[in-house]
Parts: sequence; C-alpha cells; structure tokens
Amino acid sequence: MERLFDEELNNLKEKLLRMAALVEEDVELSIEALTERKEEPAREILRREETVNLLDVEIDETCLRLLALRQPMAGDLRLITSAMKIGSDLERMGDLSVNLAEQALELAKMPLLKPLIDIPRMARLVQAMVRDSINAFINRDECLARRVCERDDEIDALDDQVFRELLTYMMQDPSTIARAVALILVGRNLERIADHATNIGEDVIYLVKGKTIKHHIDKKREYGCLPDAPPAKV
Amino acid sequence: MERLFDEELNNLKEKLLRMAALVEEDVELSIEALTERKEEPAREILRREETVNLLDVEIDETCLRLLALRQPMAGDLRLITSAMKIGSDLERMGDLSVNLAEQALELAKMPLLKPLIDIPRMARLVQAMVRDSINAFINRDECLARRVCERDDEIDALDDQVFRELLTYMMQDPSTIARAVALILVGRNLERIADHATNIGEDVIYLVKGKTIKHHIDKKREYGCLPDAPPAKV
Repeated sequence: MERLFDEELNNLKEKLLRMAALVEEDVELSIEALTERKEEPAREILRREETVNLLDVEIDETCLRLLALRQPMAGDLRLITSAMKIGSDLERMGDLSVNLAEQALELAKMPLLKPLIDIPRMARLVQAMVRDSINAFINRDECLARRVCERDDEIDALDDQVFRELLTYMMQDPSTIARAVALILVGRNLERIADHATNIGEDVIYLVKGKTIKHHIDKKREYGCLPDAPPAKV
Repeated sequence: MERLFDEELNNLKEKLLRMAALVEEDVELSIEALTERKEEPAREILRREETVNLLDVEIDETCLRLLALRQPMAGDLRLITSAMKIGSDLERMGDLSVNLAEQALELAKMPLLKPLIDIPRMARLVQAMVRDSINAFINRDECLARRVCERDDEIDALDDQVFRELLTYMMQDPSTIARAVALILVGRNLERIADHATNIGEDVIYLVKGKTIKHHIDKKREYGCLPDAPPAKV
C-alpha cells in the first residue's frame, strides 16, 4: 500500500517534469521562430499545446484520486495540492507559449524591425527559471526555489527596457508600429511565463518550509494583520 | 462534527465571495479612474490589493486544514480543491487590477487620446463575468458557469477591436503612441481578468458534473487520446 502510494507520487512528479520540459522547449522554439523568422518552430508549439493541456488534466485527476483514496497527511498532502497548482501554472505557460508562437508567425510576415538582443536574453532567463522551478520542486530544493523568485525582478527590468526601446522606434518611424507592438507583447508574454515560474518557486518554498512567502505574509502575521498559521502538522 | 464541517465550508465560501466582490469593485474603480481621469479610484485599488492577497492565503490554509483534518470524500473534496483554485484565480485578478490602476495613473498624466467607449464596455462585461462566475460556484449553477465561459469569446473580440483601433491612431499620429500602447495594455489586462473568470466557470462545471470541460477533454477521450476518467465517486 505504502509502496503503491510512493509509485503514484513518482508518477505524478514525472508528469510534471514532462510538462515543464515541454514548456521550456516551447520558449526555445519561440525564440528560434522569432530570431530566425521561421514558421516551422512556431507551428510546432501550436501542435504541442494539446499535450500540455492533457497532462494538466491528468495531473488534476491523479491528485484528486490520491487525495480521495489515500487521505494523505501533512507533507504528502502539501505535495499533492502543490502539484495541482504547479500543473495549472505550467498549463498557463503553455497558453502563453501559444501567444508567442502566434506573435512570431505575425512578425515573420513583416520586415525585420531590428536584430533582437534583449528578447532572446529574456527568453534564456525565462527558460532557466522554468527548469529551475520544477527541479526545485522535484528535489525539494528551497535555495533553488528562492533563486527563481529573486530572478523575477531581473525579468521585469528587462521587459521594461524592451518596452521603452520599442516605444522610441515607433515614435521615430510610425511604419514600425505594428511590429513594435507585436514585440512589446512578446516581452509581456515572456514576463508572464516568468511570473508563473515564480509562483512555482513560492509553492516549493511553502512545500518545504510549511509556510508561505507569498505576499510576505509572515511579516504581516508578526504585525498582527493575520491570524496565526494553522498548526505545522497540517 | 458534521455541522462544524458545514460551518467551515460556509466560512470558506464567504471568503471567496468577499474576494470576488473586491475584484469586481477593482474593475469598477479602474474604469472610473480611466474614464474620469481621476487618481483616487486607482489609488484605492492599490490600497485594497493587500486584503485580496491575505484572503487568498487564508483560503489556502483553510482548505489544507479541511483536507487534513476532515479527509473529505467525493463532492466535498472537489469543492475544497476548487476553492483553492478559485482563490488563486481571484488573487491573479487582483494583480491584474493593480496593473489597470497603474495604467490609469499613467494615462491621467497625459492628454486624453479619445473618449473611451469599447474599454468601459469590455470592463462591464468582465465585471459581470467575475460576479457570475463566483455566484455559479456558490449556487453550483452549471448553466450560469457555462454562460460565463461562452462570454469569453465576446471579450476577445472586443479586445481585438480595441487593439486594431488604437493601432490606427498611432499610425496617423505618432504623438499618441505612448497613450495608445497604455490603452492596448488596459485591454489585455481586462481580457486576462476575463480568462480567469472563465477558469472559474470551468472549475464550477467540473465541480457540478464531476468531469472537466477544459480543453474539450471529453471529445478527446472519445477519440482515445486520454485514459478514461477516474471513477465518478472520486
């Protein structure tokens, strides 16, 4: 019984790893499509979306089954509810990759605005965040999870830089507007993927420590804004 | 024991209702800030964000406690895991409202681009989606939940219309670019709030029917792309 449960948990982790690998590759493909102005990598993202969606549904169903049949306590309970949340985050990342693919297809039809530098840099950072966030989950690595969360600010700063630079392009030459707006949206989509990786990082810290760092809740509890956390066992 | 559990579930629903009411009002405030070019409603959104975040954490903790201590089965189990997901969706909506507030503050500093028509229309629809999605959850109203999901396409179409109109403004007069881009992002944020309301609608349908309509999974199961659903009891 115990061994079967462990097997099911491993199976769950494996599915999350597969999903994360797909999302990470999606980001890779989107950058290939954007920088080399190729349609095929973008179409590949569109084809793969279904697999990501199906994995999310399977993860949800597995988690519900484990909750109902095994009635797990403490750590296992947190592990399973975290897995459900992480599945949702990865699924949203898949949706955002589809947006990236559509923007790449749109941009491939128009003349090149400028060689892309900051956007591929952002994309590499985002890829690493996706990879690290899921590895932090699998290995219960709190330090790695914290590093993922910290990198979110870097992404926000890069997105802001991309945004401002593209505004100047548009202002100098209105014929660049459609392309510049498309690239601004690419930046926003990458930034949102990074947000989801950060959510996963926060969930991992909660999983390992048994307390939330979301919204700096601990600080607020100290100051009396929130009731005490439920007993650590839960 | 049974009565205590019901009380706790009611308490949970009440918290979700409070969160949803805050988010709905946020959308209202953002439109007031945008159309009347006032700073105060936008600042009010920024002040309220903390409450939304705290409610999300409290909902999560309540759900984990209920899962651990009550070991609920079947319907109650789905109710609790749905509540966790809905809390996350509402919290993200709160974040998106903060984006709206920041964009409204930015726009209030610049001359009026044009009287806003489609954006307030989108906002009213989004507000109704937020309200209906949470009412569908509280009343287990599958029809209402389906109507929420159906309205998502209308929002996407409006967002697209806003986007295209603003592109033409920018092309005709580059001095409008910064304002037009800000309004494009307002449209995108509203559209994302609608996406989260749609997620809630999908969760409600899952809660009531015990099967997912996400990604048209049933169709795919028929075609043999997915293993069968777990037994209906789970």
